[in-house]
Amino acid sequence: MTATQWTATSLLGRYDEVRGHTERLAAPLSPEDQTVQSMPDVSPTKWHRAHVTWFFETFLLADNEAGFSPYQDTYWFLFNSYYEAVGPRYARAERGVISRPGAHDVGVYRGNVDERVRSLIDGLDQGSLDKLADTIELGFHHEQQHQELLLMDIKHVLSLNPLQPVYAGTPAAPTAPDQLGWVEVEGGLVEIGHRDASFSFDNELPLHQAWLEPYRLADRLVTNGEWLEFMADGGYRRADLWLSDGWGRVNNEGWAAPFYWAEHDGVWFEHTLNGTWPVDPGLPVSHVSHYEADAYATWAGKRLPTEAEWEHGVRADSERAGAASGAGNLADTETWHPRSAGPANGHLRQVSGDCWEWTSSAYLPYPGFQTAGGAIGEYNGKFMSGQMVLRGGCALTSPGHARTSYRNFFPAGARWAMSGVRLADGGAPRLSTTGTGA
Amino acid sequence: MTATQWTATSLLGRYDEVRGHTERLAAPLSPEDQTVQSMPDVSPTKWHRAHVTWFFETFLLADNEAGFSPYQDTYWFLFNSYYEAVGPRYARAERGVISRPGAHDVGVYRGNVDERVRSLIDGLDQGSLDKLADTIELGFHHEQQHQELLLMDIKHVLSLNPLQPVYAGTPAAPTAPDQLGWVEVEGGLVEIGHRDASFSFDNELPLHQAWLEPYRLADRLVTNGEWLEFMADGGYRRADLWLSDGWGRVNNEGWAAPFYWAEHDGVWFEHTLNGTWPVDPGLPVSHVSHYEADAYATWAGKRLPTEAEWEHGVRADSERAGAASGAGNLADTETWHPRSAGPANGHLRQVSGDCWEWTSSAYLPYPGFQTAGGAIGEYNGKFMSGQMVLRGGCALTSPGHARTSYRNFFPAGARWAMSGVRLADGGAPRLSTTGTGA
Amino acid sequence: MTATQWTATSLLGRYDEVRGHTERLAAPLSPEDQTVQSMPDVSPTKWHRAHVTWFFETFLLADNEAGFSPYQDTYWFLFNSYYEAVGPRYARAERGVISRPGAHDVGVYRGNVDERVRSLIDGLDQGSLDKLADTIELGFHHEQQHQELLLMDIKHVLSLNPLQPVYAGTPAAPTAPDQLGWVEVEGGLVEIGHRDASFSFDNELPLHQAWLEPYRLADRLVTNGEWLEFMADGGYRRADLWLSDGWGRVNNEGWAAPFYWAEHDGVWFEHTLNGTWPVDPGLPVSHVSHYEADAYATWAGKRLPTEAEWEHGVRADSERAGAASGAGNLADTETWHPRSAGPANGHLRQVSGDCWEWTSSAYLPYPGFQTAGGAIGEYNGKFMSGQMVLRGGCALTSPGHARTSYRNFFPAGARWAMSGVRLADGGAPRLSTTGTGA
Amino acid sequence: MTATQWTATSLLGRYDEVRGHTERLAAPLSPEDQTVQSMPDVSPTKWHRAHVTWFFETFLLADNEAGFSPYQDTYWFLFNSYYEAVGPRYARAERGVISRPGAHDVGVYRGNVDERVRSLIDGLDQGSLDKLADTIELGFHHEQQHQELLLMDIKHVLSLNPLQPVYAGTPAAPTAPDQLGWVEVEGGLVEIGHRDASFSFDNELPLHQAWLEPYRLADRLVTNGEWLEFMADGGYRRADLWLSDGWGRVNNEGWAAPFYWAEHDGVWFEHTLNGTWPVDPGLPVSHVSHYEADAYATWAGKRLPTEAEWEHGVRADSERAGAASGAGNLADTETWHPRSAGPANGHLRQVSGDCWEWTSSAYLPYPGFQTAGGAIGEYNGKFMSGQMVLRGGCALTSPGHARTSYRNFFPAGARWAMSGVRLADGGAPRLSTTGTGA
Repeated sequence: MTATQWTATSLLGRYDEVRGHTERLAAPLSPEDQTVQSMPDVSPTKWHRAHVTWFFETFLLADNEAGFSPYQDTYWFLFNSYYEAVGPRYARAERGVISRPGAHDVGVYRGNVDERVRSLIDGLDQGSLDKLADTIELGFHHEQQHQELLLMDIKHVLSLNPLQPVYAGTPAAPTAPDQLGWVEVEGGLVEIGHRDASFSFDNELPLHQAWLEPYRLADRLVTNGEWLEFMADGGYRRADLWLSDGWGRVNNEGWAAPFYWAEHDGVWFEHTLNGTWPVDPGLPVSHVSHYEADAYATWAGKRLPTEAEWEHGVRADSERAGAASGAGNLADTETWHPRSAGPANGHLRQVSGDCWEWTSSAYLPYPGFQTAGGAIGEYNGKFMSGQMVLRGGCALTSPGHARTSYRNFFPAGARWAMSGVRLADGGAPRLSTTGTGA
Repeated sequence: MTATQWTATSLLGRYDEVRGHTERLAAPLSPEDQTVQSMPDVSPTKWHRAHVTWFFETFLLADNEAGFSPYQDTYWFLFNSYYEAVGPRYARAERGVISRPGAHDVGVYRGNVDERVRSLIDGLDQGSLDKLADTIELGFHHEQQHQELLLMDIKHVLSLNPLQPVYAGTPAAPTAPDQLGWVEVEGGLVEIGHRDASFSFDNELPLHQAWLEPYRLADRLVTNGEWLEFMADGGYRRADLWLSDGWGRVNNEGWAAPFYWAEHDGVWFEHTLNGTWPVDPGLPVSHVSHYEADAYATWAGKRLPTEAEWEHGVRADSERAGAASGAGNLADTETWHPRSAGPANGHLRQVSGDCWEWTSSAYLPYPGFQTAGGAIGEYNGKFMSGQMVLRGGCALTSPGHARTSYRNFFPAGARWAMSGVRLADGGAPRLSTTGTGA
Repeated sequence: MTATQWTATSLLGRYDEVRGHTERLAAPLSPEDQTVQSMPDVSPTKWHRAHVTWFFETFLLADNEAGFSPYQDTYWFLFNSYYEAVGPRYARAERGVISRPGAHDVGVYRGNVDERVRSLIDGLDQGSLDKLADTIELGFHHEQQHQELLLMDIKHVLSLNPLQPVYAGTPAAPTAPDQLGWVEVEGGLVEIGHRDASFSFDNELPLHQAWLEPYRLADRLVTNGEWLEFMADGGYRRADLWLSDGWGRVNNEGWAAPFYWAEHDGVWFEHTLNGTWPVDPGLPVSHVSHYEADAYATWAGKRLPTEAEWEHGVRADSERAGAASGAGNLADTETWHPRSAGPANGHLRQVSGDCWEWTSSAYLPYPGFQTAGGAIGEYNGKFMSGQMVLRGGCALTSPGHARTSYRNFFPAGARWAMSGVRLADGGAPRLSTTGTGA
Repeated sequence: MTATQWTATSLLGRYDEVRGHTERLAAPLSPEDQTVQSMPDVSPTKWHRAHVTWFFETFLLADNEAGFSPYQDTYWFLFNSYYEAVGPRYARAERGVISRPGAHDVGVYRGNVDERVRSLIDGLDQGSLDKLADTIELGFHHEQQHQELLLMDIKHVLSLNPLQPVYAGTPAAPTAPDQLGWVEVEGGLVEIGHRDASFSFDNELPLHQAWLEPYRLADRLVTNGEWLEFMADGGYRRADLWLSDGWGRVNNEGWAAPFYWAEHDGVWFEHTLNGTWPVDPGLPVSHVSHYEADAYATWAGKRLPTEAEWEHGVRADSERAGAASGAGNLADTETWHPRSAGPANGHLRQVSGDCWEWTSSAYLPYPGFQTAGGAIGEYNGKFMSGQMVLRGGCALTSPGHARTSYRNFFPAGARWAMSGVRLADGGAPRLSTTGTGA
């Protein structure tokens, strides 16, 4: 996964940085906050904190620590997320009934594993370190994924509380939508996938070729203000705009606005980690499902980009801008909220750090994809079914985590992730055909 | 959808042929058989017979018959399948509680519409006929789709009856598996989609380019005998072979064999439209879900083909064989069962008329896909979400219905369709990449 | 159960009478009508016809016919309703997926068993006949119960059909509510239960004593007109009128009127076996749940009678009127609908043949109740949990079936039975007590 | 509800005692423990602590405190349990997603209300105090009910944790079953209900007469050892022992032992508030449903007592023993577990403080029962449907709470309450009857 040259010192430094970030994110949350599971998709904060620790214990310490034994046998069972090869595991949907270990106990568990990991790394010669660095670095990226999930999940937990609790921070002043422009992208036979020696997940590989017709990408995300127009035009009441499954959800679940929006006395409010505030028309719309994103695009006479179009377009634009390949990481701010696009500049804006962007691509293996052997092979491959790809990163993504080839994925109906919409256009084939199907 | 030159005579001839075939399929079924809906996916036989009639009434007669009024206002509501633009409709899952109109009443309805359609066609000048031919031909293909569904559905209805009823026919003598070979396919930038002036559905368009690495296709379908080996090797008990969602189904629904198989005293039996018989090892395995097909391929060290690989491979093989493009239609036999592959001949065998073949492709729009306007635009496009593509055709497909570019689709967990498995191999990109994700 | 002196001739006569009545009830129903199961509580008509036949085959022929073998092994399984001791049985909720045996096949089955039963009875000497008469007579009463269920069930099936089909007959002319009076009943230590040598079910025994304070019974059932007043006064919107479980049903299931009522343009219509007609204000309200009956009584400042109050009150009134004990059987009309009460006459009106009357008594065993041994012991006893008692009989009850001590029972939320409401009042104890609980 | 002569001092003393007991029970529980709702029937500990406080705020302070305003408007909504008349309320099944107010915040809320209640009582003249004493005393008994529920609920929460946490205490040494004897009770026309001026709930009134045939009560509860015999004899596998609904639960939910029992390597263990220990054969069986109690009684050739039999029998036995009427309260120990019966002494043993005892009586209003007006009238009456009565009290019942006329109630399938079994026998009527039903 990586060819970075790690030393014990740099590894330990990064280890402390990543591990410390998790605890910093959990710090504003009470033991009660950390206990709740508000729906099966959501995990309690203290479960996230324990699970990422279990990951290091299981995949690093178990095979490499002299005289290893689990910190607690039952933790082995409780904090396994989905690794069948590691053994039986506690039911996901029941994580919220486990009051113990409590938040403090989890802190003690984290400390114990931290000490053992540090001790292990300290004692490695460079050869052994080179061999283990991939696994440790995977642990970093794994923990970062859970940092983002921790925030998405607690956002959902707090959203259900009539007391409207605040996680942290204060919202920025309202903004007006910035102008929308389009970036033209020349297609052709392009290369898709992770391409250098730095870390990536296995689902970004192998690098391969794909054929793209010329297309255009919107230079910023769809805004709340534009979404209000969609709503005002009956967006949630017109069957003709929706995929059939999406229309079913609209009706069965009463969708009438983005996930965290609620109307009071004619004004739309949005639940955020900063509290509940009037919807800001200039910010990107967030927490919409793939179905909503698709319906919006249909309404707008446009479409969603494929993941290949997204990746190639962002890379091409970035190269044109002279930016380093694979850049676009989140600035180290902690607003917990997408930002406004700012003035048009001829390049793609908001490509990371605002909202994960729904694509029109199903989450499937790249040609020639191979999973790793053993439990770690369950990391990505087995989920390549029934989900859609999102690209970019969001305001909850940890600094340095996402990249241009990064493939996130959620079911088409998922709304609790910080997901938004970038439109695409063009891309029709230039082949002539005599038939016209219907 | 079509550029066939129809005359009133040829249209009327084809109309009678298609309509008559539906009634012939329903003929062995009692009024009670025609009434039952055994699960929400299944529709009663008499509903199918009425719905395809409603289709002609709605899309042909309503706009073109002088002084049109519906045969029965309530039928307008009862027999609309999913056309939002046509108006409200009766709940799909409740079709089995509607005892009236009975099977005979539906026959009367069919006769009424037949007479009016014939009268309409008879009275058309060639110009009008040319304008309406597309809609009428769509009605033919629509009715053929329901002919296949009628058979799949009644197969399910009868399967739940402890009396083990027979629909029709008798099974062939048991066969031994034929030898498996592989057909090499050169990839490159290939053309995918319907390519000539004959009829196709809109989802087969537009014709477009796709990039394929070189690959191989198995020259026949996976057999029951091979599936028994998969089962004997713990195929349904090994989590490592399965997609996560598939493994969930295995456990929640107790999957341990193909859909219609049941074990009695150590022998596996299969429910067929010919009755319940010991599993024939030489026939293609059928009624397996995408999840099972994928797990089998993983177990075999192979994979499923993409739909582009399937279509290009079949077309290339067919051209190599000197066969007419788009051929491969079902021979006009009515065994209601896939046949054995027969001896290897250097070409792809069983590419139509045996089992629909699961591909690894999600059912998504082709680049540049456009739906038609109005209700007819709901035919395919709104279902392009959450389903997988199957190719080829099956033993229940009506003669002349399927073609090389035909895209069938079902959810990954569906098993009541006559679906089977063809393996693929190769196809990995030849690009070098330094990263190795995990 | 009985001490009637039967002869072979009288038994055969009654057998033919009861069996013929079932077929007469099914006669207006098409094979499709007879196939549908519209909800788990409802059974298909042809299932009822087969099950009552299976009852004679199982409980009479199996032990007493020389060389007995079942008519069809699978029928043994398909048509067992709930007798655990008889063996495994087909799932109740899936009766509607069994298209075969069809309605005609069931008729053939009935004929076969009829012939065998007649032949058995013909060959019995009086001693053997005396021993078997109880079982045969139980079969009569069992079949009568299913005759009533057949009508209740098909009423539900037809109610779901937008074509609004008619079972039979035509409705009577609308009537105005008759005046309501009250019949005073002296309580004391009274005898409850079946008391003579004629047939009864085991749940009507043993005869026992119960203490009743003086009370009053309404001399007729609550009418549709009165129910409309309850609705107009917010009856379905006021939580304070309802039992907690009832209020839950009102809200979860959207109850706003009796089961078969629907409002069109401000007029309430009622689905009946005669078709759908405007609600007749003079007829007894029917198809209301125990929860609704209880809420109505609370609204009216009254209460429901206990089953002991009902039985004692009806018996006392009947004795006062000089009527034969146990009388009150349904007149042999087939209106399929409750009738108006007619003018007050100082006696209890509508005590049979109109609507089953909800009591405030849970369905529990009488003191000293004993079930019979073997499968037949499952007839009543195992259902004495979670249900409420209804008394009287309804317009769908077969002639000669019900009696004063008869205990019918349904869950408190059931609405598809023809159930109505008679109010009670008084009955408070005359003991002095110093505490006042709350 | 009461005629006790309260003074401000005695009321304040009792207030502090009851309120303090709640906090003492919650003390061993972490904030995380207090947050979890393990099933809809269970409420979080901190919810119980807040709800009983809300009860005083709503029913005492709101109408009687000068210048009253709610402590927190949202608490008014969150901590209303089921009082429709008080206004809308938070969904019961979602109590576990509310992390805030936390356990500490609830403590602050309790302190605030305590201070205001004390201040109110302090300022009352005797006339006002007499008027409010009923409501305040109801608040005591209400809080005691929740003290018991708090313990039952946290027992369930901890039972689901694979870490097998202990609430408090240690188990006693194992015991052997004490000998079972029978106490004969003469029936006749007896008085049932609360009979003196002390506090009772409204459901214990009015005092009324009932007729009882002579009967016998077992002089102790059924033991774990006896239950093991029932299990060994196929008690959970024999349909003939069970009510139909009970048998459904056995099969659908896999019941094979009491609720908190689990088998490991052939030994049965029981989850208790003291931890998980081998089943003690001498202790009363607990946490069995009404269905199980009934099946056990059937197996033993006995039956459950009616609630009238229980109440009259306990009162008669108590008078015979010279004990004060209404006595039998829980000794002030905190073992959190039923105790062994001890040696037979000719009287009824274990009639309080061990297990709530299932009766065969449905929970229905006594003759002449009246609810209070307003919200407080919702306390008991609206739940008189679909539940069974339990009598006596259990080891989790607060000291001084239960009494001989006390009516507890749960659905027949409930198992998480500390419910056990006392057998009864006899009671058949001495009336002669000629019919024998079946």
